[in-house]
Amino acid sequence: MMRIGLCGLGYWGKNLFRTLSSNPNIELAAVADANPQTRERLAASHPTLKLFPDAMDLIADPDIDAVVIATPVSFHYPQAKAALDRGKHVLVEKPMCTTSAEADDLIARAKLHGLTLMTDHTFLFHPAVRKLGELVRSGALGQISYFDSQRINLGLFQPDVNVLWDLAPHDLSIIDYLFGEEPVHVEASGYCHVNPGSPDIAYLTFHYPNSMVAHLNLSWMSPVKVRRIAVGGSDKMVVWDDLDRDEPLKIYDSGITAQPRQDREMILPSYRIGDVTSPRLAGNEPLVDVIEHFRKVILGEAAPISDGHRGRRVLRTLERAQAALDLSLGQVQAAMPADHYTIAAE
Amino acid sequence: MMRIGLCGLGYWGKNLFRTLSSNPNIELAAVADANPQTRERLAASHPTLKLFPDAMDLIADPDIDAVVIATPVSFHYPQAKAALDRGKHVLVEKPMCTTSAEADDLIARAKLHGLTLMTDHTFLFHPAVRKLGELVRSGALGQISYFDSQRINLGLFQPDVNVLWDLAPHDLSIIDYLFGEEPVHVEASGYCHVNPGSPDIAYLTFHYPNSMVAHLNLSWMSPVKVRRIAVGGSDKMVVWDDLDRDEPLKIYDSGITAQPRQDREMILPSYRIGDVTSPRLAGNEPLVDVIEHFRKVILGEAAPISDGHRGRRVLRTLERAQAALDLSLGQVQAAMPADHYTIAAE
Amino acid sequence: MMRIGLCGLGYWGKNLFRTLSSNPNIELAAVADANPQTRERLAASHPTLKLFPDAMDLIADPDIDAVVIATPVSFHYPQAKAALDRGKHVLVEKPMCTTSAEADDLIARAKLHGLTLMTDHTFLFHPAVRKLGELVRSGALGQISYFDSQRINLGLFQPDVNVLWDLAPHDLSIIDYLFGEEPVHVEASGYCHVNPGSPDIAYLTFHYPNSMVAHLNLSWMSPVKVRRIAVGGSDKMVVWDDLDRDEPLKIYDSGITAQPRQDREMILPSYRIGDVTSPRLAGNEPLVDVIEHFRKVILGEAAPISDGHRGRRVLRTLERAQAALDLSLGQVQAAMPADHYTIAAE
Amino acid sequence: MMRIGLCGLGYWGKNLFRTLSSNPNIELAAVADANPQTRERLAASHPTLKLFPDAMDLIADPDIDAVVIATPVSFHYPQAKAALDRGKHVLVEKPMCTTSAEADDLIARAKLHGLTLMTDHTFLFHPAVRKLGELVRSGALGQISYFDSQRINLGLFQPDVNVLWDLAPHDLSIIDYLFGEEPVHVEASGYCHVNPGSPDIAYLTFHYPNSMVAHLNLSWMSPVKVRRIAVGGSDKMVVWDDLDRDEPLKIYDSGITAQPRQDREMILPSYRIGDVTSPRLAGNEPLVDVIEHFRKVILGEAAPISDGHRGRRVLRTLERAQAALDLSLGQVQAAMPADHYTIAAE
Repeated sequence: MMRIGLCGLGYWGKNLFRTLSSNPNIELAAVADANPQTRERLAASHPTLKLFPDAMDLIADPDIDAVVIATPVSFHYPQAKAALDRGKHVLVEKPMCTTSAEADDLIARAKLHGLTLMTDHTFLFHPAVRKLGELVRSGALGQISYFDSQRINLGLFQPDVNVLWDLAPHDLSIIDYLFGEEPVHVEASGYCHVNPGSPDIAYLTFHYPNSMVAHLNLSWMSPVKVRRIAVGGSDKMVVWDDLDRDEPLKIYDSGITAQPRQDREMILPSYRIGDVTSPRLAGNEPLVDVIEHFRKVILGEAAPISDGHRGRRVLRTLERAQAALDLSLGQVQAAMPADHYTIAAE
Repeated sequence: MMRIGLCGLGYWGKNLFRTLSSNPNIELAAVADANPQTRERLAASHPTLKLFPDAMDLIADPDIDAVVIATPVSFHYPQAKAALDRGKHVLVEKPMCTTSAEADDLIARAKLHGLTLMTDHTFLFHPAVRKLGELVRSGALGQISYFDSQRINLGLFQPDVNVLWDLAPHDLSIIDYLFGEEPVHVEASGYCHVNPGSPDIAYLTFHYPNSMVAHLNLSWMSPVKVRRIAVGGSDKMVVWDDLDRDEPLKIYDSGITAQPRQDREMILPSYRIGDVTSPRLAGNEPLVDVIEHFRKVILGEAAPISDGHRGRRVLRTLERAQAALDLSLGQVQAAMPADHYTIAAE
Repeated sequence: MMRIGLCGLGYWGKNLFRTLSSNPNIELAAVADANPQTRERLAASHPTLKLFPDAMDLIADPDIDAVVIATPVSFHYPQAKAALDRGKHVLVEKPMCTTSAEADDLIARAKLHGLTLMTDHTFLFHPAVRKLGELVRSGALGQISYFDSQRINLGLFQPDVNVLWDLAPHDLSIIDYLFGEEPVHVEASGYCHVNPGSPDIAYLTFHYPNSMVAHLNLSWMSPVKVRRIAVGGSDKMVVWDDLDRDEPLKIYDSGITAQPRQDREMILPSYRIGDVTSPRLAGNEPLVDVIEHFRKVILGEAAPISDGHRGRRVLRTLERAQAALDLSLGQVQAAMPADHYTIAAE
Repeated sequence: MMRIGLCGLGYWGKNLFRTLSSNPNIELAAVADANPQTRERLAASHPTLKLFPDAMDLIADPDIDAVVIATPVSFHYPQAKAALDRGKHVLVEKPMCTTSAEADDLIARAKLHGLTLMTDHTFLFHPAVRKLGELVRSGALGQISYFDSQRINLGLFQPDVNVLWDLAPHDLSIIDYLFGEEPVHVEASGYCHVNPGSPDIAYLTFHYPNSMVAHLNLSWMSPVKVRRIAVGGSDKMVVWDDLDRDEPLKIYDSGITAQPRQDREMILPSYRIGDVTSPRLAGNEPLVDVIEHFRKVILGEAAPISDGHRGRRVLRTLERAQAALDLSLGQVQAAMPADHYTIAAE
């Protein structure tokens, strides 16, 4: 049985713990977490589990075949590097690391040692995203013209990421999964209401070579939580509302029809409105599939869905978006009057 | 009784006709429309109405006290100018004209002749916008941090406007009404899926001196119609969904609370979630109020809510947004491969 | 051209006036209304229209080929009878008259004189009801097991009808249209909160010979308006929400599957959940189709969809429901303490 | 620390297990379950827990202070009786037992031995029901005129209960909690589509002495899950939609206003439509509160919210509803043609 070690028992780490424990083909053999109370509780309830205060010690343990890294982002690179160098397969949380250069290095090491390197973009295992993938790849939607995402809520402000790095990886991994292309042009704007230099609202536009435009509206400042992605094609359009319990995915047999007009320069298209279908989405909890998929990829039984290259492409686009955002923030700062408002600490 | 002439009986002109006819203090004395069938039908049903094929002849008619201009945008300026020069009050459809220079000229003429010049930004008479105005001005929302609008549908492509000029005037007039400021910085991106050079999708970001950021997501390519504006303040947040029959306006007693943290550089705010209130919105059909307001402003009984200055500010921001959009479209064009896709006429 | 007279210009009469006027194959030749102001306004705007204070005089006018009766319910029978006896076709508002005996008499007279007698159950011309009819008759839903309607709102209390006679005719005509059967057993309960003896809430259960059960929840006391009908079949189930602007009709490919169990007496069925489809519903305003249908039936070009027999069956079921309701109210009255509450006039 | 034994580890028993385990003031000392595999799994993960195949042996264990009974309904009475007779406090799942006579006996035994006897009507600890209770008792709603519940879904058919006994206890316990009265008159109808004699759809009407009418629409045959309760008062009305994630409880400042009319016999009330408020509902998971409440009641630190008397009243109303349902089913059976349809095993 494959012996796996888990680094980090924070919010997402707890889900990984539960999921790794319930997979009958995996032995969750060790856990590393810096918090002594977390380790004490685990020692009581799981007396046979190896516990480490330092993830590097877990990684060094020769009993472990593979590691799952769910520590803060800045630790991803050194821990993944150490694990690969010690011959262990790696599943690392998103974002994969902090720079695409780090990602390049990890990919090279995994290749050198013949090891599996995966990024945990859990959404790619979500039944709605799989269905979207089928619809895009089968051509059912026709030529794709836009991807529009609204991902807003009252956000949990975090010390080490801004709203871009917190929320955009979800959309960027889904775009990469659906279309497999990197944008040719990136635009961004945003605002830092709380911490100067750290946007809590960001608007992003990505232009793709196939003429698709993608737009992300990301916010930590919305009283209403929205998780809504629309994908428009020349034949059909799809809206995925992740918070709709009953009909999360709707396929609209609607579109724009362009007719030739010889008598005028412009095309005045008409639109067509047809049925709406909400397919039944069945499937496991996505994280259960992520873990089983990781196991199968290690054993050579499956091709990786979310490998290091995908993680690196997402990172590279995040870096470009951050640069565009920095440019915009600087221009706005220059244009603003000196005393403009932020939500200051009282 | 005030005698009013109506220029243009298209889609919106028909609504103006009905509204002007039903105001008991106004006599709708004349109508101009280029379509002979339209005039014939009117002659049959309204034998006492004066009919003109050419709006300029209606404007020249000495029996008319005031004109309402609902012709295509390019006619607004010459018709309004002629009317003002002949001593007639003017209510002109939005957008007021095609350039802010034209608007300046109309404002100057109205001032010179002591006449009323109003732009028909009907939404400013909508009960929800009035309520929003009360909430903003009373300080109930606290310091405003964002205005976020989604205005998307399967669009009626029009020969003389793009999606920006079709949809943005609504949001820009509402922003001007609520906050009375012009943006210090304007950003835009978009895409032309159907007609090169004429965007059918546009994303706009406006930065205001009071540190508010406004974002508009405009599209003629969405199978689902959305008309949703969110306004976020430091104390409360409001969402107006114009298509929600039952509770179009919701006030969220929710927000971000920033606490001082002396031990660290960053502010890690927490959020607060409270009750949601949906106030009863009562009132006339907005256009009925527009017309009655126009009458009262002419008689000096009311101060104008939507005067030429407001119309000009909206125009000026549209011009800046168009320039930002042109810049973005050019950059994307340059970055794109040569053979990229548009919805070509078949 | 067929010359039609309209009796009654109340709430629904105004809609009939507009619809009759816009049908190019019909001449709306005369209108009767007891209100002198109504007649004066009409005389001004429609100088060629014949106007009568008394519907009986309109009915006696030899120039009229057919009459549409939209007067209060108690007038339906005498006016329809007079019209039929004078050789005029009749379209009468719902409910057709006040007793099924009256309906029998009208049906007999129409047959005797070879005239068209139709009841205006407008909902039968609604695109959603037509679609429901297709689904039921094609067998797409399988064996129908229930019809469940919620028809509640803050009601306009009316002097001459209770909530049963106000709201149930809609559902009963739809049931008659879909299934063409009368119930074998009728049950009812309700409550009179405002006027003793006149229920403002009614719950009705109808049992049909094909083993379908129909339930109606009718109320004038609900702050939220609901117009929702669910039809369940062994293969598919349908929900029609008449207030849902975007997807009023949803077809659920879901159901109950009963498997044989030889080892036990009971059947423990499992359920099956599949896709949801919302068909595009296109069509005219239903009343436009009602009027054109009436014209065609008179000319022998169409078979009547809502004839006197359907109107009579609806009436007969209403009578049985009223009797069941009376029985229940009496039993509750007897069981109640003497001083129980009603919303008394203050 | 209080030592509690749990009888039954089925669907709800698992929730009780988790909740009992996480209460720091309670020791979950023993579990009884007839399934050997369930006991084996528990033995592995919880080596210190006492396990019994037979609940009666757990009940006889002198180490146990109190028992929670979550076995099938027919076992509730003998197990609760045995526990009370051995001096143990009892929390029993709903419905409390199978007849009100059994409930009377349990209440008498609990009184005789001075023990706590509670029924687990979990909904009474739900934040929405508590808020409803505040609104009703404070008089904020005015005089209550109706309680209307829709509780429908594709049902898990169960061998020992029909839809009435499965779903009505929720509503009946809430009504008892809100109003504390038993109905003066009970009416019921329903249908048995799957198993003769065992309704899968039931419509119930209860008349209360304060002139409130309550109606329950219960179904195992609906493709859409609905959990919606409306409570109407003379001043305000409330709708609780348990499946609405964002605003489950809405308070409508709307109602019926009856004005005196001296000139006529009938009262023609008008209606009033005001704001809608959705209060923030905060609180624990209800079952956590149930367990802590049970502990406090045993210690004399709290008065029981859901005691044996409440459980008995719910049972008594269920019995009356079943009798009314039987009466109706018999009458329908008699009226039906011989060969009418049921969903037969294929």
